Amino acid sequence: MHEMTTVQISSNQPINTNGNKTTKSSKDSQKANVLGVTRMEDYSKWYLEVIKEADLADNSPVRGCMVIKPWGYGIWENIQKKLNEKFQALGIENAYFPIFIPLSFFTKESNHVAGFAKECAVVTHYRLENNNGQIGLDPDALLGEPLIVRPTSETIIGYSFQKWIRSYKDLPLRINQWANVVRWEHETRPFLRTTEFLWQEGHTAHATGKETLEQAKEIAFLYRNFIQNELAIPVILGEKSPGERFAGAENSFTFEAMMQDGKALQAGTSHYLGQNFSKSFDIKFFDDKQASQYVYTTSWGLTTRLIGALIMVHSDDNGLRLPPCMAKNQIVIIPIIRKQHKETEIYQYAEKIARSIRKLSYKKSPISVLIDKSEESPANKNWHWIKKGVPIRIEMGARELDSDFIEISRRDQPNKEKQQLPLENVAKDVKAVLKEIQKNYYNEAEKYRNERIRKDILTFEDLKVYFSKEKSPGFVLAKWCGSQESEERLKELKITIRCLPLEQTKIQGRCVITGEPADIDAIFARSY
Amino acid sequence: MHEMTTVQISSNQPINTNGNKTTKSSKDSQKANVLGVTRMEDYSKWYLEVIKEADLADNSPVRGCMVIKPWGYGIWENIQKKLNEKFQALGIENAYFPIFIPLSFFTKESNHVAGFAKECAVVTHYRLENNNGQIGLDPDALLGEPLIVRPTSETIIGYSFQKWIRSYKDLPLRINQWANVVRWEHETRPFLRTTEFLWQEGHTAHATGKETLEQAKEIAFLYRNFIQNELAIPVILGEKSPGERFAGAENSFTFEAMMQDGKALQAGTSHYLGQNFSKSFDIKFFDDKQASQYVYTTSWGLTTRLIGALIMVHSDDNGLRLPPCMAKNQIVIIPIIRKQHKETEIYQYAEKIARSIRKLSYKKSPISVLIDKSEESPANKNWHWIKKGVPIRIEMGARELDSDFIEISRRDQPNKEKQQLPLENVAKDVKAVLKEIQKNYYNEAEKYRNERIRKDILTFEDLKVYFSKEKSPGFVLAKWCGSQESEERLKELKITIRCLPLEQTKIQGRCVITGEPADIDAIFARSY
Repeated sequence: MHEMTTVQISSNQPINTNGNKTTKSSKDSQKANVLGVTRMEDYSKWYLEVIKEADLADNSPVRGCMVIKPWGYGIWENIQKKLNEKFQALGIENAYFPIFIPLSFFTKESNHVAGFAKECAVVTHYRLENNNGQIGLDPDALLGEPLIVRPTSETIIGYSFQKWIRSYKDLPLRINQWANVVRWEHETRPFLRTTEFLWQEGHTAHATGKETLEQAKEIAFLYRNFIQNELAIPVILGEKSPGERFAGAENSFTFEAMMQDGKALQAGTSHYLGQNFSKSFDIKFFDDKQASQYVYTTSWGLTTRLIGALIMVHSDDNGLRLPPCMAKNQIVIIPIIRKQHKETEIYQYAEKIARSIRKLSYKKSPISVLIDKSEESPANKNWHWIKKGVPIRIEMGARELDSDFIEISRRDQPNKEKQQLPLENVAKDVKAVLKEIQKNYYNEAEKYRNERIRKDILTFEDLKVYFSKEKSPGFVLAKWCGSQESEERLKELKITIRCLPLEQTKIQGRCVITGEPADIDAIFARSY
Repeated sequence: MHEMTTVQISSNQPINTNGNKTTKSSKDSQKANVLGVTRMEDYSKWYLEVIKEADLADNSPVRGCMVIKPWGYGIWENIQKKLNEKFQALGIENAYFPIFIPLSFFTKESNHVAGFAKECAVVTHYRLENNNGQIGLDPDALLGEPLIVRPTSETIIGYSFQKWIRSYKDLPLRINQWANVVRWEHETRPFLRTTEFLWQEGHTAHATGKETLEQAKEIAFLYRNFIQNELAIPVILGEKSPGERFAGAENSFTFEAMMQDGKALQAGTSHYLGQNFSKSFDIKFFDDKQASQYVYTTSWGLTTRLIGALIMVHSDDNGLRLPPCMAKNQIVIIPIIRKQHKETEIYQYAEKIARSIRKLSYKKSPISVLIDKSEESPANKNWHWIKKGVPIRIEMGARELDSDFIEISRRDQPNKEKQQLPLENVAKDVKAVLKEIQKNYYNEAEKYRNERIRKDILTFEDLKVYFSKEKSPGFVLAKWCGSQESEERLKELKITIRCLPLEQTKIQGRCVITGEPADIDAIFARSY
């Protein structure tokens, strides 16, 4: 029997409402609140508090599973939309495979077994029985072969590929699936590590190893550009060291991002699987000389974990900060109505401004503007949308009706400051500000990260000191000899090799672990 | 132990290649093939053959589960896209809830238990063990409480609603989820009835019963319009009779479509649940007088079953016919190149035409044009795309380079006929043809159905004769007294009351089952 643990969001701390400072420009403005806990005080609690106060996710009654609320799911939908566009441009097609995998499939690829066979949800029965209102398992409905709820789909997709591929004309085959997967995790945290999570998993098959490795790399670059341009998260693209590779992969590409506590987070992976899965699943094709050959395959995925990275990279002590590309609503208009004075006019004016902005597209989608007509006070509304990280807020009261300007509050700037935009060009100006915010978030994150990459640590002793003495150690870029035994020693320091960056200096040096001659550049860090 | 049955697609019949007739207008044209089986010969086999030849889905190694291939999944993505737009306009937000439901939740709503508790996939273990390469269940990893793979999510969403709703200000709450669900079916058929299927399930909560019933109706009309306008399937919108209602519903709206074998298919449902679930899950709110009240709820869903309906309503003996709104590619250009003569010019010309068409939008999305550059012969390509039901094919060879026209083949017209479009206005003309095809499919289906609705059957004896003697009986529209006992008697005839149409004549008559005075109009039919 296992202990029931749930994904704990919340912490139930009341919102800190210290003071009611008004802004320079308006009395109708937001409270200068902060969350119940700051990053400095407790990073881990702060993370949960951001999620709770931004209304991104909620606990569920099922161990390790979360409920993704609309504001959080909106981020995932943006991720889906943008990735689908990019996949389509590469000729990758979406399909759907069964959630259940027969137990026997797990024994076919031996490395895969070792890496995945342990922590899975297993379906053993297909019926319940009702004994006078007591619901229980029907013992007669035991499955002949247990079914595993997919932790990943290489095996079941391999089964289909084996049927679909006959000749070189069927190659390359490029398939993607959007799905839920389940891995029975012991310690869970919303978005970062949950028993059930959402992802996309791409699977391709090719005629030659060279083309296949290129495909894995092409996806790696696609992912990197996507994460940097759309999520505004700088990442280091590199290969995984053998000790950190996916079970069954010959080479894995990864994207390592730095969180605000200095820890690394693997934002996604793209694997070159060689012929490991094609040999296990007998996926063969006739080449143009009618010779039978095994195909080569790749697999690659991004998960709802990205939302965890997004939160941890950009948010501040006021809550979430969303890059405009990822916000469900990029702009919120907050009507300020005193005792119903000019209520109709103000709403009409808000609608007019909203319509003019919605006519413009930002990164190929119409800009999304919400008018907050809820019953809350303007101050509460402001604080609500600050915590949710909406990029631009526009307050609009009786005064604005006769003005040639509107005033915007930007989430990338201190809450008290406002910016005036002339009315005549307001939609275009707002769009320009969205672009600026997106860029600012990236630049801030990159600066933060670059300041926390140490390149002057040269010995194991120094590595040890750095990771034990420093309060929030960041990344160490150092030389590595490539031996598996040396990688093992990192366990002492509770760090791992995060990746071997694709951009290698090729300068000869000494391994930071063993002191042996070494020319591989590697990133060492704590990680999520 | 249960028998292993799988969703059987295929039938492994070779494609019937009788004759190689060329068309009037071109030697480079399609073979006049038909599928290996026609609707008349064997409707059920024909259905599987359409799916196989159109490459919509494939068998999987998991009992009752299918693989949805890209051409089939493309239909689902179109359904998702269009419905999301409509949901958004009504203020419905997408979210995601756990796939697992604790067993105890099923005992809370007693009607729900009776309706659903039986055929479910049950997770009992959370770990496997590896005994020298033999993978099996880890007996120590038995869950304290079994988890059910969701057959529907009323209960687990009810749990969240209970937490989220505090005051009347939180109402109405409108949530939708796109998800996979599992119901352990005994007999399965691809798309129509599969153990795992995809759907959207909407759940709303409101302050009053009246508003809630209105919401269920609003969704019913949204669904009807969507199915008729986008899938080109005429449906009869009505209420379910008590015997056919969803477990736990007070009223259910349904949309009944007629397949080409005369049987009815329930295309979707919208349920008014009253306070049944709110009382079971203690979902209460404080009204504006601070009194505590139970909310009222609705739930409503459309599934991948719609794809089955689409196939059965529109397809013919040449294979699938896709309404343009639902086709992944609306237009396919087939370059005809003889011995590489003018290959480059022909491809360039094809690209040029494709670009000009893609600039136009059809129903808010850019028209999707594919150029088929595969190595197959033009005849094979033509036949390939006929079977896949692409609305418009454009063949393009050396001859077209010097012509002021292009020739299109429409899937809604006999394969041999072609239509010339002047080059100067080709994109607009093509778009107009897409609209026409969409309309034609609807009109054809409506005519087919209307001719098969019998209104002259007045007694149980006549009902019996009609449904036993007729080879493919259609719908019977007749009077019903409303008694549950009479509904029971229909089992003898293997028919059901499909719905009580919203449009009621209110004319008094006699119940077709009992002969008693009756004023309810009802649709009687066999069904899928």
